[in-house]
Amino acid sequence: MTQIAIVVYPQFTALDFIGPYEVLRNLPGAQVRFVWHEPGPVAADSGVLLVGATHSFDETPSPDVVLVPGGPGFAEAARDPKVRTWLTSVAPTADWVASVCTGSLVLAAAGLLEGKRATSHWVAVNQLSAWGATPVTDERIVFPAPGDRVVTAAGVSAGIDLGLWLAGQIAGAERAKAIQLFIEYDPQPPFDSGHRSKAGAGTVSRSMAMLTRDSLRPGPLKAASALLWESAVRRVRR
Amino acid sequence: MTQIAIVVYPQFTALDFIGPYEVLRNLPGAQVRFVWHEPGPVAADSGVLLVGATHSFDETPSPDVVLVPGGPGFAEAARDPKVRTWLTSVAPTADWVASVCTGSLVLAAAGLLEGKRATSHWVAVNQLSAWGATPVTDERIVFPAPGDRVVTAAGVSAGIDLGLWLAGQIAGAERAKAIQLFIEYDPQPPFDSGHRSKAGAGTVSRSMAMLTRDSLRPGPLKAASALLWESAVRRVRR
Repeated sequence: MTQIAIVVYPQFTALDFIGPYEVLRNLPGAQVRFVWHEPGPVAADSGVLLVGATHSFDETPSPDVVLVPGGPGFAEAARDPKVRTWLTSVAPTADWVASVCTGSLVLAAAGLLEGKRATSHWVAVNQLSAWGATPVTDERIVFPAPGDRVVTAAGVSAGIDLGLWLAGQIAGAERAKAIQLFIEYDPQPPFDSGHRSKAGAGTVSRSMAMLTRDSLRPGPLKAASALLWESAVRRVRR
Repeated sequence: MTQIAIVVYPQFTALDFIGPYEVLRNLPGAQVRFVWHEPGPVAADSGVLLVGATHSFDETPSPDVVLVPGGPGFAEAARDPKVRTWLTSVAPTADWVASVCTGSLVLAAAGLLEGKRATSHWVAVNQLSAWGATPVTDERIVFPAPGDRVVTAAGVSAGIDLGLWLAGQIAGAERAKAIQLFIEYDPQPPFDSGHRSKAGAGTVSRSMAMLTRDSLRPGPLKAASALLWESAVRRVRR
């Protein structure tokens, strides 16, 4: 059994973790859970997508894989004492601690990236240095140094590549390739502006404008409403 | 305002629609909604991921964009009279009707692909011919014929490419490129087995075995439990 704990905090960016989720859930013996303070619906940065947390942090003391996504809510998650305590508590025994996008800043705030090379969303990557990490802007995945188990991926869609790499590490290349075919990951983007180095100045500024708008979106659901989802969540818990 | 209606049926495959959602929500004036019989949590094929339907079919009579994802639940969705009636009712006035993965079989069952070329997940694509469509196995996106507005994408991750293409059609290439940078879609898969033509026989059979397992997963949440989520959903409705 491989327990995969994906942290879902208010104002996450969904593709950050749905990419790796779709890969990692297909590992042999995979047991995915979505963790937050308590089970219940958590709202995405879009304000319209709800995803269910299935387990609390306290119920998840020893995951094999930890994955922290990014999103405009990363700053609040990074300041959350419970998030930091949980990350520092589970990291030493986890086989892998991974982040996508600004999830790396949550790991950094928990002290897990000190003295390490790491990446993040291109808009936020330089903030990593505030926590003693070395920002890397030209690697889609920053693999762990020998003996380390923390791996960080660039923005949003980079989580798919990260997930496949992790799948290869955990279950071998043959399984990872079967999962790649399962999700038919044979990318053919109609444009080629997926990295800052390939995008023109206009594209960069338009993209930044979209990010700013996101940070002005309404806040998370109140915790109380999460309780209403309790029974539905109970059905999917394992 | 561009209203984007994403159908979420029990046992969907999440990445199928989270990819295009992450792209299309960043269109100017985008109003995304997740539609099903009634608002409430809907369980993915993994049995552990819950996503919230925000609106009912009846509340969504004239979306600008319709997107149907795939997943092991596609066959039941394709047989559902309400799904078929709604699709045939909204298709004539929608600017775009799109599918990812086995979502095309739901469109086909509603009569929307008769006489047309279309694609689907590689395991299911040949089933399209049962509804009078011509299966296409070597195009990641099958674009509409002149004058038509139905577009179908291959399995799971192909939805990201589809989303970017649609974004270009709806808001122009510059906006689509900014969104591509926003989601940092500069794919670097660690393996190259994302299309059947590139995968060896072993990879194909391992991938098929995973699909078979999925079809044996427990069924959808009962409709009753959906009501428990009502209040949470109300907060994200627009």
